[in-house]
Amino acid sequence: MSKANNVILFGFGVSPFCGRVKVALAEKGVSYEEREEDLCGGKSEQLLKYNPIYQKVPVLLHDGKPVLESSIIVTYIDEVWPSNPLLPNCAYERAKARFWTDYIDKKVFDTARGIWLSKGGEEQEVAKKDFIEILKQLEEALGEKDFFGGDSFGYVDVIAIPLTTWFSACEKFGGFKVEDHCPKISAWTKRCFQRPTVVKSLPDPENVYQFTIQFRKMHGL
Amino acid sequence: MSKANNVILFGFGVSPFCGRVKVALAEKGVSYEEREEDLCGGKSEQLLKYNPIYQKVPVLLHDGKPVLESSIIVTYIDEVWPSNPLLPNCAYERAKARFWTDYIDKKVFDTARGIWLSKGGEEQEVAKKDFIEILKQLEEALGEKDFFGGDSFGYVDVIAIPLTTWFSACEKFGGFKVEDHCPKISAWTKRCFQRPTVVKSLPDPENVYQFTIQFRKMHGL
Repeated sequence: MSKANNVILFGFGVSPFCGRVKVALAEKGVSYEEREEDLCGGKSEQLLKYNPIYQKVPVLLHDGKPVLESSIIVTYIDEVWPSNPLLPNCAYERAKARFWTDYIDKKVFDTARGIWLSKGGEEQEVAKKDFIEILKQLEEALGEKDFFGGDSFGYVDVIAIPLTTWFSACEKFGGFKVEDHCPKISAWTKRCFQRPTVVKSLPDPENVYQFTIQFRKMHGL
Repeated sequence: MSKANNVILFGFGVSPFCGRVKVALAEKGVSYEEREEDLCGGKSEQLLKYNPIYQKVPVLLHDGKPVLESSIIVTYIDEVWPSNPLLPNCAYERAKARFWTDYIDKKVFDTARGIWLSKGGEEQEVAKKDFIEILKQLEEALGEKDFFGGDSFGYVDVIAIPLTTWFSACEKFGGFKVEDHCPKISAWTKRCFQRPTVVKSLPDPENVYQFTIQFRKMHGL
């Protein structure tokens, strides 16, 4: 574990976007200080100062300078601590990794929210159908490989794996099992969770589920 | 001009996203074949084959392999043809360039469309207000620099400048002048258009305006 006390992560326990940063830092063996934000009660002055436009986590403060947006932070970590590279060595493979990152960023979390933050009915059915379509597309991208990066855990795996901690909440509210539709995604999830860097960095899906229950209550659901 | 007949761009004349790729290739001195897609009449089989998920331009075909999503393509070009680097040399500055690219991608085009593809009234006023806010934010990021990249034309400039060819249509439909609200953005636009790589790669704003008129007609406006 390299010493890097100049690294501070402003985060929030169940956030899959903060999870990406934690997994990336763990993969690089970088130690850091974690500052938990109170997103429901009130954000810290520092968060508002470092991320004035979006006012959200994660913020990675490195040597006093803020790096913003989770996938950009993961790229930054990969560039600053080059051992154990996450992005592929070949420019074309890097472009593909960025394509799938962008796809995941545009699709997965918002569609999942349409399941767990829904009143049910037709709206939820549409979200469920879309969600499974998206996972099937990712399953196709995974193909027969162990990881999105190929034989070893890489950039797209770091980007995608934290989102799976929210799948259990989707399954409970939506009444379905990801495994029944996308067995390869389920197998990949289990494979990733065999890594200590993943297990120690990400929340228990049960905690995420409890969070979604609280969040629904806050929204009168 | 380096020979690169193995580079094909599937594009569409007025698209600001294709414009990014053209400017980047021009900055690198890479020659390429351009295949104009008929987005209104019918997309080519090749476009659907190379970009099955989004089925949209631009697609950069390099050595027979498709690279997708305009800002990812610009990064790819910068990595494959490293002379005249577009992204900054320092990891922190690169993270900032990626942040503003993401900001531009999330905000500018869709908000602009809310102006030129509007029935007018309150909806258009909201879009206009949002659009000016977004440009003011970008103006703040530009600061007193000549370019987003600093002294020289760089990555964020490549990403942002093609979008300005749509500003004239926004101004005409919205009844305002960008220059009155964001003089530094206007000065930066003029500065960029002094570069031959920009002028030769991007459409005349009048052509874009004519396109928006046709597009509005197609949508019954």
